[in-house]
Amino acid sequence: MEKAKAAVMPDFHRPLEIRQYPLPEEIEPGAALVEVEMAGICGTDVHLWKGQLPIPRPVILGHETVGRIVKLGEGLNADWTGAPLREGDRVGWYAGRLCGRCYYCVNKRQPTRCLKRTAYGISYNCDLPPHFLGGYAEYHYLHPGSAIFKLDDLTTETVIGAGCALNTAIHGIERMGIDWGDTVVIQGSGPVGLSALAVAKTAGAFLTIVIGGPAHRLELAKTFGADHTINIEEVTEAADRIEQVKRLSGGYGADAVIECVGMPTVVSEGFEMCRDGGKYLVLGHYGDAGATALNPHIITRKQLTVHGAWASEPRHMAMGLEFLRKHGRRFPFAQLVSHRFPLDRAFEALQTTARWAARKSVLVP
Amino acid sequence: MEKAKAAVMPDFHRPLEIRQYPLPEEIEPGAALVEVEMAGICGTDVHLWKGQLPIPRPVILGHETVGRIVKLGEGLNADWTGAPLREGDRVGWYAGRLCGRCYYCVNKRQPTRCLKRTAYGISYNCDLPPHFLGGYAEYHYLHPGSAIFKLDDLTTETVIGAGCALNTAIHGIERMGIDWGDTVVIQGSGPVGLSALAVAKTAGAFLTIVIGGPAHRLELAKTFGADHTINIEEVTEAADRIEQVKRLSGGYGADAVIECVGMPTVVSEGFEMCRDGGKYLVLGHYGDAGATALNPHIITRKQLTVHGAWASEPRHMAMGLEFLRKHGRRFPFAQLVSHRFPLDRAFEALQTTARWAARKSVLVP
Amino acid sequence: MEKAKAAVMPDFHRPLEIRQYPLPEEIEPGAALVEVEMAGICGTDVHLWKGQLPIPRPVILGHETVGRIVKLGEGLNADWTGAPLREGDRVGWYAGRLCGRCYYCVNKRQPTRCLKRTAYGISYNCDLPPHFLGGYAEYHYLHPGSAIFKLDDLTTETVIGAGCALNTAIHGIERMGIDWGDTVVIQGSGPVGLSALAVAKTAGAFLTIVIGGPAHRLELAKTFGADHTINIEEVTEAADRIEQVKRLSGGYGADAVIECVGMPTVVSEGFEMCRDGGKYLVLGHYGDAGATALNPHIITRKQLTVHGAWASEPRHMAMGLEFLRKHGRRFPFAQLVSHRFPLDRAFEALQTTARWAARKSVLVP
Amino acid sequence: MEKAKAAVMPDFHRPLEIRQYPLPEEIEPGAALVEVEMAGICGTDVHLWKGQLPIPRPVILGHETVGRIVKLGEGLNADWTGAPLREGDRVGWYAGRLCGRCYYCVNKRQPTRCLKRTAYGISYNCDLPPHFLGGYAEYHYLHPGSAIFKLDDLTTETVIGAGCALNTAIHGIERMGIDWGDTVVIQGSGPVGLSALAVAKTAGAFLTIVIGGPAHRLELAKTFGADHTINIEEVTEAADRIEQVKRLSGGYGADAVIECVGMPTVVSEGFEMCRDGGKYLVLGHYGDAGATALNPHIITRKQLTVHGAWASEPRHMAMGLEFLRKHGRRFPFAQLVSHRFPLDRAFEALQTTARWAARKSVLVP
Repeated sequence: MEKAKAAVMPDFHRPLEIRQYPLPEEIEPGAALVEVEMAGICGTDVHLWKGQLPIPRPVILGHETVGRIVKLGEGLNADWTGAPLREGDRVGWYAGRLCGRCYYCVNKRQPTRCLKRTAYGISYNCDLPPHFLGGYAEYHYLHPGSAIFKLDDLTTETVIGAGCALNTAIHGIERMGIDWGDTVVIQGSGPVGLSALAVAKTAGAFLTIVIGGPAHRLELAKTFGADHTINIEEVTEAADRIEQVKRLSGGYGADAVIECVGMPTVVSEGFEMCRDGGKYLVLGHYGDAGATALNPHIITRKQLTVHGAWASEPRHMAMGLEFLRKHGRRFPFAQLVSHRFPLDRAFEALQTTARWAARKSVLVP
Repeated sequence: MEKAKAAVMPDFHRPLEIRQYPLPEEIEPGAALVEVEMAGICGTDVHLWKGQLPIPRPVILGHETVGRIVKLGEGLNADWTGAPLREGDRVGWYAGRLCGRCYYCVNKRQPTRCLKRTAYGISYNCDLPPHFLGGYAEYHYLHPGSAIFKLDDLTTETVIGAGCALNTAIHGIERMGIDWGDTVVIQGSGPVGLSALAVAKTAGAFLTIVIGGPAHRLELAKTFGADHTINIEEVTEAADRIEQVKRLSGGYGADAVIECVGMPTVVSEGFEMCRDGGKYLVLGHYGDAGATALNPHIITRKQLTVHGAWASEPRHMAMGLEFLRKHGRRFPFAQLVSHRFPLDRAFEALQTTARWAARKSVLVP
Repeated sequence: MEKAKAAVMPDFHRPLEIRQYPLPEEIEPGAALVEVEMAGICGTDVHLWKGQLPIPRPVILGHETVGRIVKLGEGLNADWTGAPLREGDRVGWYAGRLCGRCYYCVNKRQPTRCLKRTAYGISYNCDLPPHFLGGYAEYHYLHPGSAIFKLDDLTTETVIGAGCALNTAIHGIERMGIDWGDTVVIQGSGPVGLSALAVAKTAGAFLTIVIGGPAHRLELAKTFGADHTINIEEVTEAADRIEQVKRLSGGYGADAVIECVGMPTVVSEGFEMCRDGGKYLVLGHYGDAGATALNPHIITRKQLTVHGAWASEPRHMAMGLEFLRKHGRRFPFAQLVSHRFPLDRAFEALQTTARWAARKSVLVP
Repeated sequence: MEKAKAAVMPDFHRPLEIRQYPLPEEIEPGAALVEVEMAGICGTDVHLWKGQLPIPRPVILGHETVGRIVKLGEGLNADWTGAPLREGDRVGWYAGRLCGRCYYCVNKRQPTRCLKRTAYGISYNCDLPPHFLGGYAEYHYLHPGSAIFKLDDLTTETVIGAGCALNTAIHGIERMGIDWGDTVVIQGSGPVGLSALAVAKTAGAFLTIVIGGPAHRLELAKTFGADHTINIEEVTEAADRIEQVKRLSGGYGADAVIECVGMPTVVSEGFEMCRDGGKYLVLGHYGDAGATALNPHIITRKQLTVHGAWASEPRHMAMGLEFLRKHGRRFPFAQLVSHRFPLDRAFEALQTTARWAARKSVLVP
């Protein structure tokens, strides 16, 4: 029985370690085995490592992965969009798996809250076969019914550079809605912030303001077309940032503010940046970072609408890939991939992300 | 020059006192002078008295008023809906006055946030003519452009019993939206809560749960058709109330939760009562009662949508009066009027409301 | 091998005839065999018999059916809502079967347009096993994945009286939306019209006007709470009906008009009944009854929004059953069941429906 | 009393003729007198000349106008957005005038259907003072309350090139909504079609297909970023155009189709170009060009949503001007201005537009 390597997180707060597991001998009908080409390290992986969400251990992290199909299970001959699929094809896939039948999937149409939702790179104890259900590994097994996307002309760097952040931004902005002509503030200049910027600009925003840091990320935001940036290392007071946003948006505040930071305190700052009747999107709080002081009176008086969005659906990834095909030149997501590590140095890669030292670290097994 | 009496609030936290002011000798074109029949005491009046919003003093409070037209200014011959208007007609009016031209009125279509918004019973220093711009008085002057509504067959008690709470509930629920079939939780059993209950039931809610107290208000909620009530004096723990709501709503939580209390802490409790993908409406925080600890992660993970709504527009009052005509038998708002006071005892009336001792206190000058 | 009877439509325009088919010897995992208690005859069955939609023949019609579970396939132990399911339970089911994976199901979220959609009583050649896939029969086979609903306290007459018309009305009105306070006109007083009336009234309509006939149906509309009815046998000119609607709705026309007739000419009449900025729902044109003269300028000038809705989803049936439980007393759908026929007289039953002689005919095998 | 010239339409189907009227001696408070720099000839002017809408005669046509402020009435010191306004400023204005108080303005929030709506260049008998209420003239009078916009850095050609077509497209697409990622078909390549293209592309469309002609207009559509064009002079059969659209949009049809032609027959063609669950916008039928054969069954079966939009609101013009500032380089509307005529040759200019010979004709008095 052939074996392959994976970088395993044995438990919260513990270094990743390289382990070997047997590759599946048989591929179920509808399933696929993929040789990993590149695995993105997402900020969420850091949150998971810190234990901010309850997940099984040991686990192979990695929910942003591109690879080549080694073996296709019987009957799997087309990708999620209907394009023909063959062994050797380079593919990405949507990490989440939805049941399509539960209260949230069909009754309330909130499939991201599927009662049986699992996700590659998050929900599977890797001691159990088929073991390879996360991206930090040489191979990845895809269960029947996985949403697989053939990449064709899209480069691996582009797809991993966009990562799950793009899907998340698409979902969030779909829920909040951007009206044509809106002034949009984006709190945060990490992958989710840059994705939100790209989506907002193509969804009708006329003026975009990105608040974040450090400077190299804000430069990237400029490359992505941010009209203004506010560096939190320079403008260190929330009141000053609010003031700047108001001034830049004609005095009343922004039509929409998108939180892509994950720190609770930015939310009250963001409320103040909205014009009356404005929209606020809490997008960066996938992890539970605790409570903060918020004044409900602000929501009433400014008649805000505050939206939450959790993860995304396969169709958002389909839209994201189409977006990269169509607008990839305008938004060079491939440039986010700044640090490459071999599989053996996976923990170092994760730490680089944790320190915010990288635009984006990736594993190249 | 003829004089008339008014109950004046000289300053925050000060007893109301009876003063006399001269009645206007001339009525401008489009204006009207009304003899007050009944003035409602709104919970907001208590907040104003406590100084929770910055308003001029001295002021004649009272923004829920019914009276008879004594004199019509030139050219004013129809009410807001186009119905003919004559001296002697019994009328109500929308207390807010909107400019119809500003950034919020026409550009962003948020007229409740009109930059020049003023409101009878709130925004006018009563030392300045025409003095009578609040309901706690023998007369009320209506500026040109006021949204006046002829009451015809609607009783004064019905209109004052519904008060501005009904308009507020209509506006809030319009913003949040209720889907046909929704399970709706209402936090609070005061006038706003009962109004929200009435609107929710007729807007498509299948199951309604009212949380509040004391018992006599919950009985009224039952009369209004609440399917379930939870008495906060009996179920004193938030966790238990959340548990009950989940049990009553099939295990997942409510589709919509409407906050009608005005105490910040109920908001986090309410978030937990929502199902994933649910809606939350912050409706009770007209006054600024300060911040509370809220966890943005809940909004993301449960993908909630949180709505705020400030006051209302004249069209909401038009809808409200039509509602009372159509559904008044089902929702006996007149029964809310529980305590009547002459003008001289206005301060006692206000205190009764402040102590939550009354369903609703009114002045009958 | 045991056999059972079914009323079979051999081809378009041909009399139904009784045939016998073998009952399935084995029930697949997840499937069920049901003994039919009552099968509704829907107006659509008449359209199908006339060949207005391309369907296979021979076919067992009947997509509104209630029966008792005779045998449950392995693993089927809960209904679509999660309620436990046992042999002997009386159940209804959603007639359509959706794939849950195609372009329309998951990508564009239009599951009623599922590319692999089939429907019991419509899409199955009954010469092929398991034969019993329509309601006009002694038994009905339910494939795995069917949306089955335990009826409990709901009477069979109530469920069949509401039939698929209620699901259709729920879906259509969900798409169009009814705003709280709307004046709603319903063109048609058959099962779809009455269902639309019931849904509209509970979704926020303040004033409802039903246009149709004959008189006995309009009386039923009154029982269902129609504020006004217009008998097309008395008011025979479209211009007069439009005039009446305008008069009854304050001069401007209705906020929403719902077409539940299926005759193309009523659409242009309905456009004229809308106020400017109003909504129109084409709900009665499940069958293709051909084109009619419509003026696009009307849509532009009155800035109408015209909605179409095809069939429904399982969740609409879930909502419908909940509605019958909650509001069944107010809307006595059971009274629609006016004519009962044994299976042998199925063709006579169909003809009764075709002649509009019945409120609703049903088969009681 | 000083006089000035205007090109007057004496009656439907009659040549325009040059007349002289006295300029107003006094400018009311809030009003303004403007010296016309350029007046656009809109396709609607041709419809008006043909008598397709009931308007007073004689009339000075011209509702797309730019000029310099000669005199400001008392109190008029800011434009609609609040920017300071001075004599000598170059300005445009929204041609429509709304009452802000009627059933449609405030009650149903459909201000474009204001019951007292009038429009410069359309609704005023020019024999009555102040005479100069249309663009085909040396001067233009602006009543108090007109929505005036200072142009600053925007060139006159850009503003007139965009004309009222841009406002119309903005309003229409606002009503219909474009979802991020939509494939959008635009029927028509005139000013409204090109405007719709520009708005659709910046509102989230990923793929745009323009159907029209002649070739020079389609070339302009390409300049504006159309992904595909279909020349109706080459692809003369509707069935072939439908086929091409389906092929270009992945087989199912477009998510949204926008009609910008004004010929009734294109509507049924457009319905067929929509995917199931798609959106259709009737935008080109400002004039009444009569009825056409449409099949309501298509709307039901494909569950289409068909939107109408009439004219626009001042805020749409504000958005349009901001759009030209922000995206003017990408969408060179100034290039639409292809034929310039002095005021004396106004009728020749109108005829050039009527013959579709010009991209856009303008008067330069």
